[in-house]
Amino acid sequence: MAAKAGLAMQERSCGLVVIGNEILSGKIHDTNTYFAARELRSIGVALRRIAVVPDELEAIAEEVRYCAQRFEFVLTSGGVGPTHDDITIAGVAAALGRPVVIHPQLEALIRSHFSDKPNKAGLKMAEVPEGAVLIEGGPMIFPTVQVENIYMMPGIPQLFEGKLLALKARFTTDPYFAHAIYTSAGEGTIAALLDACLERFPKLLLGSYPKIGSSEYRVKVTLESKDRDYLESAFRYLLELIPRDVIVKME
Amino acid sequence: MAAKAGLAMQERSCGLVVIGNEILSGKIHDTNTYFAARELRSIGVALRRIAVVPDELEAIAEEVRYCAQRFEFVLTSGGVGPTHDDITIAGVAAALGRPVVIHPQLEALIRSHFSDKPNKAGLKMAEVPEGAVLIEGGPMIFPTVQVENIYMMPGIPQLFEGKLLALKARFTTDPYFAHAIYTSAGEGTIAALLDACLERFPKLLLGSYPKIGSSEYRVKVTLESKDRDYLESAFRYLLELIPRDVIVKME
Repeated sequence: MAAKAGLAMQERSCGLVVIGNEILSGKIHDTNTYFAARELRSIGVALRRIAVVPDELEAIAEEVRYCAQRFEFVLTSGGVGPTHDDITIAGVAAALGRPVVIHPQLEALIRSHFSDKPNKAGLKMAEVPEGAVLIEGGPMIFPTVQVENIYMMPGIPQLFEGKLLALKARFTTDPYFAHAIYTSAGEGTIAALLDACLERFPKLLLGSYPKIGSSEYRVKVTLESKDRDYLESAFRYLLELIPRDVIVKME
Repeated sequence: MAAKAGLAMQERSCGLVVIGNEILSGKIHDTNTYFAARELRSIGVALRRIAVVPDELEAIAEEVRYCAQRFEFVLTSGGVGPTHDDITIAGVAAALGRPVVIHPQLEALIRSHFSDKPNKAGLKMAEVPEGAVLIEGGPMIFPTVQVENIYMMPGIPQLFEGKLLALKARFTTDPYFAHAIYTSAGEGTIAALLDACLERFPKLLLGSYPKIGSSEYRVKVTLESKDRDYLESAFRYLLELIPRDVIVKME
């Protein structure tokens, strides 16, 4: 069982690139990353990397290129408005070595819904990396712009969340299964037991998270796998290893 | 004034590398990045990049190397405990091409305070990248480990925050000065005015942040500079450009 674990399970990986000086300078407490991390996990996607980069063309392009080459898909957050500091479209285009072009459908949308004589800022909202496609759904009449494996999402939390929820179905894959063990013993005491469990179940996703200031427990140990049988076997094995009297609770 | 702005001001740049599967998988809502972003800004440091990477040696090493080569200093958060998933020390050592060694002072600390016969997990806490130095101060008797321009901080928020506060004095540099203008007009309306302001004050840090669902304002425009005179000039200039009747308030 152990040797084959996970082989049949589909893995989908994702990188998240957050664009915004306002986050790096501490003006805004980003909530999109936590939202995305939970949502992606809930649909079985492995979020492999989050990067927050400034509103600078080369920084955006470099990070997007890095993620697009390594992960199945990439989400970007922020920098898609009409002002000078909104340069995500240009950054993604540069990442792919493509020009920025006006998307006729977006231009028509802007002319019909906002102004039939849009100013420069209005027309900027019609710009996309060449070859981009539009995805309807979610909040706003404005669609999500996708090019290759990159999805450009708005940074405003209500819009980011709504757009991501609207995209979830296309990313959904085999789910993760999970257990947790809470111990009254510290990490130093249980570290060798976790090592022993990993030696037997090398594909197990095993985490150890100490908590200070809690009267309830000292360490939360998490076990995860996409293979339910593998997870259950590892869980039982680790429960045998950890002395009963230090286990506070299980999930 | 404008042409010379900022030349005399000291710039200090920082990269923040957060190590933790628990953040990428959405189990934990990271608060260290927001804390660090605010604190660094308050002491004049430009946080240029935040990356969240998994508990994997190569991912940590690559990101730490990237930041250490580009920024004046690097903070890491997490992965410094005694269990299998704590591999920040090894990752930083790999980033610098150095071996991991036992630091005699840390080993003595562990023997005197925890156990005079530490187990393997206990001794792991004495490991550092070769050439590391120890910095006393902040919560815990355990010092912060520094090697080259890299500071390895614990991930537990209470400890991360305390250790960062203890380090602040060594990073402090010329402060940023800031103004904000809140408008009832949308970004599309004011975008050209912001462009005009930037054309005249190219070194101004100018941000434009739309808010939805607020009855008070639609856009918050932020102006920042380390040069107070430059900031005040730019602020006055932009106030002249934006029609009075769309300005809701100023800071």
